[in-house]
Amino acid sequence: MARRTGSSGERTAREIRAAAQRLFAEHGYAAVSMRQIAQEVGVQAGALYLYTSDKQSLLADLLIEHMEELLAAWDAARRDEADPATRLETFVRFHIRHHLRRVDKVFISYMELRNLSDENFLRVERLRRLYEQVVEDILHDGVAAGVFRVADPRVASLALIAMLTGITTWYRAGGRLPPERIERIYCDLAFGAVGGAAPAAAGRAAPA
Amino acid sequence: MARRTGSSGERTAREIRAAAQRLFAEHGYAAVSMRQIAQEVGVQAGALYLYTSDKQSLLADLLIEHMEELLAAWDAARRDEADPATRLETFVRFHIRHHLRRVDKVFISYMELRNLSDENFLRVERLRRLYEQVVEDILHDGVAAGVFRVADPRVASLALIAMLTGITTWYRAGGRLPPERIERIYCDLAFGAVGGAAPAAAGRAAPA
Repeated sequence: MARRTGSSGERTAREIRAAAQRLFAEHGYAAVSMRQIAQEVGVQAGALYLYTSDKQSLLADLLIEHMEELLAAWDAARRDEADPATRLETFVRFHIRHHLRRVDKVFISYMELRNLSDENFLRVERLRRLYEQVVEDILHDGVAAGVFRVADPRVASLALIAMLTGITTWYRAGGRLPPERIERIYCDLAFGAVGGAAPAAAGRAAPA
Repeated sequence: MARRTGSSGERTAREIRAAAQRLFAEHGYAAVSMRQIAQEVGVQAGALYLYTSDKQSLLADLLIEHMEELLAAWDAARRDEADPATRLETFVRFHIRHHLRRVDKVFISYMELRNLSDENFLRVERLRRLYEQVVEDILHDGVAAGVFRVADPRVASLALIAMLTGITTWYRAGGRLPPERIERIYCDLAFGAVGGAAPAAAGRAAPA
């Protein structure tokens, strides 16, 4: 994959990824041509190939970048020294905040998995598995410490991630519930699901 | 929308919907042409217009049919006379079974919402809202009966549906867990999330 270096080249590469993301989110990967992406960025179709070898690489780059960004952000947010309950609350709040800021990317990352080549799918799957393992480890540690009750930490981690990511399908800024309230409600749901008590029990949302 | 009647016409209409569903699931709505759908069914492109007015109608039909089928199936499965805990367990098992048998349709129903016209989107949204209300009502009744503890039944119903539907993204027949075990695990997660106890407490999955 030929990539031009230097600040102008990097800017163009970023613009190409951003344009591909917008177009894939709006029309779907299969319906978007390299020509359209070039047009959106304002470069000749031929110039696109200085930055990426083909549309498949663009898609793989987007999905891998999304997962690497997520894992790096979690590395900055994680609190491995804390007890399992605090770690779970940290994770729930982190996951919600991170995903609500990237709704387009989340959508593409689920929807376009089917359009990845086998090799690229495996690369993305490995990164997703690392992220799922984060939750599984917290649940394992909580079970070992006697503060969570979870029949199958692997399945429970997938269930929690699906539940939290689902917010991106209905959340609208300025809606009925402010983000902090949504985080609180989902912390309570998550802790309930794993049979644990949220660390800041005093701050728990009151029943309706 | 001109529709031919009679058993042969109805069969063709069904085949067209099935072909559209397969192609939309594989390539995405925007990338599929009416010509491709006709080819898949084995009819002339022109003949397709005897059955459907355009691709948008085909998509709307699929998504509306999916929701109407879901609501009708729930009407057959629901147990309104039972206590809230039994009703929630009935719902959880129903939702999992119904969706695992229609993974393609579930995928299209989430992914292609963006491609519906405003009018069709509203029709689908109304049906989805009816289904979400099923869970919200159960949670409300459970809170009123003092058997569930839920801060926001509306949000909790969306959270439960997302958690349960998420199974369709990882479940493979013949995998590590048999369907009955998956249903049991998700019942426990759902009851935990709403602060309730599953009715058949003796049958709860043992912690790992």
